[in-house]
Amino acid sequence: MRELTNPSRRRMLASTGGVVALAGLGGMQGAKASSAPAAAAAPAAKPLPEYAKWKNTDALIVHSANTIETKRGAFGSSVITPSDRLFIRNNIAPPSLDIVKDPDAWTLEVDGVAKPRSFTVAELKTLGLTAVPMVLQCSGNGRAWFPSKPSGTQWTVGAAGCVIFTGVPVKALLEAVGGMSDGMVYMTSTGGEDIPAGLDPKDVMVERSVPISAIEDAILAWELNGEPLPLAHGGPLRIVVPGYTGVNSVKYVKRLAFTKEQSPAKIQQTGYRMAPVGAKGEPTQASIWEMPPKSWINTPADPDQPIKAGRVVISGVAMGGMTAAKSVEVSINGGKDWQTAQLVGPDLGPYAWREFVLPVKLEPGTYELASRSTNTAGKSQPEERMENNRGYLNNSWRDHMVTIKVA
Amino acid sequence: MRELTNPSRRRMLASTGGVVALAGLGGMQGAKASSAPAAAAAPAAKPLPEYAKWKNTDALIVHSANTIETKRGAFGSSVITPSDRLFIRNNIAPPSLDIVKDPDAWTLEVDGVAKPRSFTVAELKTLGLTAVPMVLQCSGNGRAWFPSKPSGTQWTVGAAGCVIFTGVPVKALLEAVGGMSDGMVYMTSTGGEDIPAGLDPKDVMVERSVPISAIEDAILAWELNGEPLPLAHGGPLRIVVPGYTGVNSVKYVKRLAFTKEQSPAKIQQTGYRMAPVGAKGEPTQASIWEMPPKSWINTPADPDQPIKAGRVVISGVAMGGMTAAKSVEVSINGGKDWQTAQLVGPDLGPYAWREFVLPVKLEPGTYELASRSTNTAGKSQPEERMENNRGYLNNSWRDHMVTIKVA
Repeated sequence: MRELTNPSRRRMLASTGGVVALAGLGGMQGAKASSAPAAAAAPAAKPLPEYAKWKNTDALIVHSANTIETKRGAFGSSVITPSDRLFIRNNIAPPSLDIVKDPDAWTLEVDGVAKPRSFTVAELKTLGLTAVPMVLQCSGNGRAWFPSKPSGTQWTVGAAGCVIFTGVPVKALLEAVGGMSDGMVYMTSTGGEDIPAGLDPKDVMVERSVPISAIEDAILAWELNGEPLPLAHGGPLRIVVPGYTGVNSVKYVKRLAFTKEQSPAKIQQTGYRMAPVGAKGEPTQASIWEMPPKSWINTPADPDQPIKAGRVVISGVAMGGMTAAKSVEVSINGGKDWQTAQLVGPDLGPYAWREFVLPVKLEPGTYELASRSTNTAGKSQPEERMENNRGYLNNSWRDHMVTIKVA
Repeated sequence: MRELTNPSRRRMLASTGGVVALAGLGGMQGAKASSAPAAAAAPAAKPLPEYAKWKNTDALIVHSANTIETKRGAFGSSVITPSDRLFIRNNIAPPSLDIVKDPDAWTLEVDGVAKPRSFTVAELKTLGLTAVPMVLQCSGNGRAWFPSKPSGTQWTVGAAGCVIFTGVPVKALLEAVGGMSDGMVYMTSTGGEDIPAGLDPKDVMVERSVPISAIEDAILAWELNGEPLPLAHGGPLRIVVPGYTGVNSVKYVKRLAFTKEQSPAKIQQTGYRMAPVGAKGEPTQASIWEMPPKSWINTPADPDQPIKAGRVVISGVAMGGMTAAKSVEVSINGGKDWQTAQLVGPDLGPYAWREFVLPVKLEPGTYELASRSTNTAGKSQPEERMENNRGYLNNSWRDHMVTIKVA
């Protein structure tokens, strides 16, 4: 997290930030695959990009300059994912590191309200303050397990983390601008990425609309896990929509509008849609918004590392999606029998994940460990994924199962 | 946090770890002052010691190699204090970084139980897992405001942080050793520091006893904020006693014993006692164990940085000590009038602190900002500190007041 606070390092990074390649553009389009899938086979090979040099290399798999995954064994068990272990997924290359040099000067335009105006981050800071613990998860997390081999980064579990975002509630902002205009149905956020010359902005801009109900818990965040929001995670200012997949929490947000229609940007109209396998994304298909319940085991989870017979503590993380995880079951025989796990550690509210633990005694042998989360609304993680063309929203417990050897 | 996961950096640090000076020895003794007080006048001058080189320099005041304070403006507002901003206070120099090279191999001896034995950390990990959010605070935090000018580091607010420790509950360990022996009254933990040659071990060893009731929530921790516990914070293994001052959470713990008497070590017998001003520590005086309710304002808090008139969000942190903070009042006129602040962000349980917020409208002028915390047991932060010879447990709201200028 040094680049935001250490001026010399900041300058160094800023001077190299411009050369970060425009990668992963295909991530939101049907046919053009991102450059990432090949990387999944040799994950340790690529170096961290300059804008993310402060991250913990050993905890991460660098798929590309814009797609970086947390290793399954690297989440820790302290609920909160440390920022330097948190995944990165950019739809297009981030802006220059220059924009986080003076974060308070960043400007947000607010529209579709009684009194449209712009705010600097410094001004937003006078409107209110709250902190929201939440799972941040890429829509395509778990894509690697789709048998249809969707294009895009082949994430397993690590395009997710549980973090604390801090900023001003959108509702406090709305109060300051006299409320939203009549008849608005969506909250539409525009990212501050530079649009590469020669491309139609609508094809590449990151502009996402979410149902207006999301304003209840959404915040405009300038801090992540106690430190100024780094560029890698959307600094100086990010709209954060708890419970929704990561793409809806638009980075370097420069405009927040309350609108009657969804954004005309490709990323909204045809990108991030639940298209049938083999079909293109269409506005008529469901948009990738709310997250479903999900869980996975982090420890033990290394099939190549036999563990000692005897007492073993199985542990992992469980989320509920739009409500809290209420219970988790664990199976050691591939889903034939299930035992109730214990939820341990702090309950950080409806949008965070919980740590779960099941101590077992294991004889030498091979075990298929699975976990299944149920949220407070009674919704459980299913056995099978919901097939779709781009490999979104995988919460199949069978896919997330791990096979371990006990010696 | 790289030194634990990046082998090359780890080696580099380990090779220089041995030269860390044996400083701060006087911190637990009456007459010998530590070398720190002078540093308070020119806080930015000293470099971070090698074992803490991974910390965020800009967020910290280095008083000495063994006493490093978080700046008042550097806590952030996300409840959890990032590890690289967390204070350090060692009673004697930490052991070599070698001990965190293979944390699972570290050994803990367990005594005063039905079946005394030793455990490696790897073995402890098979006994259970939990995560505890809690305020870690040096007994002498706030010492700078004592008019009697006690010896020791002149901490203001920054010898404290709210972190998540993860490990095995002491109760789970006790279960594994058949429970404690009859008649035990204290839990006594011994640190793994090297005792400098020529000194009586009892004079320098870090061995602390706490009342047996502390086992309810105490854990043996190997993880801090989602990362392997660094040497700087007691890795590979630390006994963590939530609600108690930091000295009771013994670092690099090598022995955990249930005992009938308090430790014979000087740090227990005469150190960390509520001695009257001018008197020496004695075993008959109260030991520094439980923390009282406390709070302070972090923003705005810089007397040299005038802020803009108009809406201002006053924010800070409030803890309850042995129970949760229930409410916080804020005054903008030096304690004449009080307003109830809003507790925001997640409630991380009884031992964590809460973020509080009060939005106000301020005309140009000078304001004395104070905060006052009340815990769920009904105990409030007092106006005045409890005077004592070494400057422990300062929770006076008047001392923690800040004067700000509004232009």
